[in-house]
Amino acid sequence: MFDPAGPILGIDPGVSCCGYGAVAGARGHLEARACGVIRTPPTDPLPVRLADLERELETLVRELRPAAMAVERVLFQANVRTAMSVGQASGLALAVAARAGVPVTYYSPNEVKLAVAGYGDAAKAQVQEMVARVLGLDAPPRPPDAADALALAVCHAWGGSLREAVAAAVSKEGS
Amino acid sequence: MFDPAGPILGIDPGVSCCGYGAVAGARGHLEARACGVIRTPPTDPLPVRLADLERELETLVRELRPAAMAVERVLFQANVRTAMSVGQASGLALAVAARAGVPVTYYSPNEVKLAVAGYGDAAKAQVQEMVARVLGLDAPPRPPDAADALALAVCHAWGGSLREAVAAAVSKEGS
Repeated sequence: MFDPAGPILGIDPGVSCCGYGAVAGARGHLEARACGVIRTPPTDPLPVRLADLERELETLVRELRPAAMAVERVLFQANVRTAMSVGQASGLALAVAARAGVPVTYYSPNEVKLAVAGYGDAAKAQVQEMVARVLGLDAPPRPPDAADALALAVCHAWGGSLREAVAAAVSKEGS
Repeated sequence: MFDPAGPILGIDPGVSCCGYGAVAGARGHLEARACGVIRTPPTDPLPVRLADLERELETLVRELRPAAMAVERVLFQANVRTAMSVGQASGLALAVAARAGVPVTYYSPNEVKLAVAGYGDAAKAQVQEMVARVLGLDAPPRPPDAADALALAVCHAWGGSLREAVAAAVSKEGS
């Protein structure tokens, strides 16, 4: 399922609302390929919600054939309940990525802010405005989880461009 | 895959070491049907470890055909990293249960201690000794994660016996 020419898929894990966003293209002309959220009904039992989420994530990866997945690294959560919930959703996303052979990179919220908005303590709204501008969208994608997932994908794409530029410069020096 | 006459499967979720233990029989003559741990190598990338863990849990559920799953409910963890890790493993276990149609019940460590050892702040060693005695084992199962998983299964089995006794008493009253 892994396609090296595929888009970069950002995932903002959550059980109630899991954001996803895919971008493709090089730095300077990135475009959004997909963007949205997977919701699971709070009235369903948790195991059913998790199985649903995993199936939706599998469908997403099968359809988008991403070259890479960028997942939020959670370093701090206000409470254990939230950390558990994010952990449950991220565990499923990572297992889905591994089965599809898609490499995963983790980014902390601060790394995303630094990459996309230029500084690590940027407000969420600023990051979302930058994501919209970079991708040529009229307005930041809604809901915020979708925009956060796109920001993760942009962060990875830019890092990738930088890695390629460095590799090209190094190989030029060597030639 | 769900078998109402199957054993009760306890799961103590973890990525490095996930305990499992299955018990069958009625209160007073419970026996251990399976007990052990699933380990994933710390040298493997996390997504691969999670995919491996999910596959092993699927195999376990397919082989044991449990009637119910008892999973540790995590209310507090010393740090977010541990909570995330337990969350990731528990998310996989719950999704596996839902796909197999196995109902899940959650028990906090204190509920397990209260049910198995008689008081909520019992030491881990006391709980494990009681598990061994109840199941007619010469010594507490090793490693501790396997014993903890068996304790979850015993806790659920005893609760189930209690529920059945209450239901029987109520139906007797009504007849």
